[in-house]
Amino acid sequence: MTATKKPDPTIIVIFGASGDLTWRKLVPSLYSLAHDGWLPDRFAVVGFGRNKLSADKFRERMRDGVAKFSRYGRPGKKEWDEFARQLSYQTLDLSQDETYRVISDAIHKHEKSWECQARRVYYLAIPPGLVGTTVDHLSKAGLCRDCERDRVVVEKPFGHDLSSAQELNKLLLNRLAESQVYRIDHYLGKETVQNILAFRFANALFEPIWDRRYIDHVQITVAESVGIGHRARYYERMGALRDMVQNHLMQVLCLIAMEPPVSFNADEIRSRKVDVLHAIRPIPDDDVALYAARGQYAAGWLRGEHVPGYRDEPNVEAESNTETFAALKLFVDNWRWQNVPIYLRTGKRLPARVSEVSIHFRPVPHQAFPHNAIADMQPNCLAIHIQPDEGVLLRFEAKRPGLRMRLSPVDMRFDYGEAFEESPPEAYETLLLDVMEGDSTQFMRADQIEAAWSVIMPVLNAWEQTPPTDFPNYQAGTWGMQAASVLIAQDGRSWRMPTAAQSDADAKENEE
Amino acid sequence: MTATKKPDPTIIVIFGASGDLTWRKLVPSLYSLAHDGWLPDRFAVVGFGRNKLSADKFRERMRDGVAKFSRYGRPGKKEWDEFARQLSYQTLDLSQDETYRVISDAIHKHEKSWECQARRVYYLAIPPGLVGTTVDHLSKAGLCRDCERDRVVVEKPFGHDLSSAQELNKLLLNRLAESQVYRIDHYLGKETVQNILAFRFANALFEPIWDRRYIDHVQITVAESVGIGHRARYYERMGALRDMVQNHLMQVLCLIAMEPPVSFNADEIRSRKVDVLHAIRPIPDDDVALYAARGQYAAGWLRGEHVPGYRDEPNVEAESNTETFAALKLFVDNWRWQNVPIYLRTGKRLPARVSEVSIHFRPVPHQAFPHNAIADMQPNCLAIHIQPDEGVLLRFEAKRPGLRMRLSPVDMRFDYGEAFEESPPEAYETLLLDVMEGDSTQFMRADQIEAAWSVIMPVLNAWEQTPPTDFPNYQAGTWGMQAASVLIAQDGRSWRMPTAAQSDADAKENEE
Repeated sequence: MTATKKPDPTIIVIFGASGDLTWRKLVPSLYSLAHDGWLPDRFAVVGFGRNKLSADKFRERMRDGVAKFSRYGRPGKKEWDEFARQLSYQTLDLSQDETYRVISDAIHKHEKSWECQARRVYYLAIPPGLVGTTVDHLSKAGLCRDCERDRVVVEKPFGHDLSSAQELNKLLLNRLAESQVYRIDHYLGKETVQNILAFRFANALFEPIWDRRYIDHVQITVAESVGIGHRARYYERMGALRDMVQNHLMQVLCLIAMEPPVSFNADEIRSRKVDVLHAIRPIPDDDVALYAARGQYAAGWLRGEHVPGYRDEPNVEAESNTETFAALKLFVDNWRWQNVPIYLRTGKRLPARVSEVSIHFRPVPHQAFPHNAIADMQPNCLAIHIQPDEGVLLRFEAKRPGLRMRLSPVDMRFDYGEAFEESPPEAYETLLLDVMEGDSTQFMRADQIEAAWSVIMPVLNAWEQTPPTDFPNYQAGTWGMQAASVLIAQDGRSWRMPTAAQSDADAKENEE
Repeated sequence: MTATKKPDPTIIVIFGASGDLTWRKLVPSLYSLAHDGWLPDRFAVVGFGRNKLSADKFRERMRDGVAKFSRYGRPGKKEWDEFARQLSYQTLDLSQDETYRVISDAIHKHEKSWECQARRVYYLAIPPGLVGTTVDHLSKAGLCRDCERDRVVVEKPFGHDLSSAQELNKLLLNRLAESQVYRIDHYLGKETVQNILAFRFANALFEPIWDRRYIDHVQITVAESVGIGHRARYYERMGALRDMVQNHLMQVLCLIAMEPPVSFNADEIRSRKVDVLHAIRPIPDDDVALYAARGQYAAGWLRGEHVPGYRDEPNVEAESNTETFAALKLFVDNWRWQNVPIYLRTGKRLPARVSEVSIHFRPVPHQAFPHNAIADMQPNCLAIHIQPDEGVLLRFEAKRPGLRMRLSPVDMRFDYGEAFEESPPEAYETLLLDVMEGDSTQFMRADQIEAAWSVIMPVLNAWEQTPPTDFPNYQAGTWGMQAASVLIAQDGRSWRMPTAAQSDADAKENEE
């Protein structure tokens, strides 16, 4: 797809530009945007970082990142040179006042040569502990004074629990308007996640049956086959609930459960999502085990390869109690969803990398078919595959060919990859363009973040107060521990076996 | 599929056994049933006809029919001999009393050797004019006295208009209980037609949106690419409205529009269908042109072959006014369907052989998407393909991959042939087994026939009173005449282009 309208002149200032994110995601995505003509003619990426790196070395590393991670692979010389001319890098210490004068100079130099004011995007690809002071400095230096033009992008994690998230938001909103803050949950930039909105609200067919009268329950699964890779230090402090459920799964839940928006205005969409989070029935502090289950992987086999247990991964404590699998049962207490359980699960070292939402409908209200016809009958199920094979699958009952009426479940399928020639953009392409254009629909508002933390706080607290006695409790290469099955089985239901079960052991997944 | 339970001992007496139907359909279907083990151990086919034919010659011809038309093709010697042993043939004049003594003897001979009473199926593969006297004779000879065991199968046409249909029913019901009469509309025996019931009532998903609140209109298309073949004499008296609409299309309409049945009891299903026919808004005698359009094909090109016009077909009158294309707009006046138009069309020498029902849903009630997103937007459509590629297709809106929200219609598909290994039985297999088992669900009750005639009588009358002035008015190889487009265009809608457009010029279609 090629650009129709380009953003205004833009300077992207990346803090932490020598880190992994810039190399793997940000610059490769910007390169793809440039390749497709989405970037403004007046455009600059100003990188800052602690690592001592010349601008040339920086550009070289970025070229390597583009070759490895962008959708267009290794760039041609001419195209690269043109793009690279817009990249610069300086080694700076973000805690020094002096630094921000240098930044200011760099910005003004561009603006002066362009003879106009530019949009400034400050991308904080830095540890959460540095976010507060960096924003303070930016503000004091007068660099984010303009609510219209100046934007700050914050990466996850957004706090470690509700109170630290509130604190972080306070720090940000002391200095910035909410409309200037772009909190990235890259999951929201994924094509199929965005597609949930299209699916629900561009079709007259599904909305009338999208409620407690017709839906029995909902399942949201985000399964990873990888372990924790090189992220032990980060993951040890987080665990699956913080790393995946609080953000990705909760956001998908919002898209599935929200009321129809009046428009695609950013605040309208986000308000409808927050409505869902606020309606989630609080998990009772003294009954957490009925609503949540945790697991940690032991050594096991994945596609013929023996993989170590979590406690044996490098930089993981030998007695670590960090969960690598979390399952939740939630209820949304409103007219639409009253008493419809929504089951969430996510885990590492599961048999396949697959994310899907499945909507399980109630059985037919009246069974008119002869007894022999219905032996194999199942209620309808709609499965939305988020990855790896984006698509939609509708399970319904059909008559088996033959002389008797005998019903069998069959699948109606739609596959995005087959239907469209266009290759979908990377989530970061979508999100970076949104930031430049000032569209915050796919970003997390302060109240969203806090509401999501509120939902999981009872579980976090209970798990902290009562350390697990059975870790590790599932083998790598299996679908998780007994307790996850019990969580849903106690309601007379079972986890759906995800359809697409694609192998994907590459490192990329850790970033997804 | 193999038999689970076989019918009781059965004698099938075919009147008109030397005709085409017996050769093409009845015996090949019985052979397939035998092959799959559905026939009872005590089973006999007793054929009678005017043609002088020895029993051996008859069996030889039947073997040829089985080879040509059965699902299993040319039978092996042993299997054929075993099957053929059950076939007999005698030349008889059906108008003679004597004939029925011979029939009675033949039946009793079998029953005696089996040492039990058999079910007797009298299959009237004879011209409609002979049905009355044959049933009279059967009755007088005491051959259909037993309401439980004795059955009479009547082939279409069931009359030429409402009054002749009423007369025929009176003749039959003078001598027989309604439960003994099996009026065949072979379309109802087709797998995908039966599947409409499964689709609607074995799935909780569709029924809630299956009404005027969500459905804008319905289209039923039965398109044939063949001309009239060798059936000119029959077709000249019939025309498309009598030949296709009064029976096949009207029955499909009933399956689509009927209320959920309490059970699959034959009378329950048929009563729900009759309810639909009774609810159809009568076409006003003086406004037929608003509700009906007729056409006749001129010479044209079909897949590169030049084909003659209808009036140039052998045995067709040079000035014939018989319609080969008919389109109707109907309303079902009840709570579910009030003011939802149901458009029917059928024709010969159309570009493809394809039968499908399409349910066109209303647009989304509120358009929340940005203006640029919805340029290609279409309301949802559910298409049920009856033939040639049995399947279901659901057209919905999805986001095109790309950096902007842009919606495009895409298709979710289900294909019976891909989903099931079993090859579907021929309609006649299903129907013959149903007759033997006494299940009349898929057969036409007297009131169904008459109600269907009632619906089309205003059109038949108007067309007879006002001969067409524009015949021939469509070229072979096109989708029919202007008037058919106008019929639906005047409501701001258009005919759906059927998806599957498979070439099929083989003779078989004439029988379908």
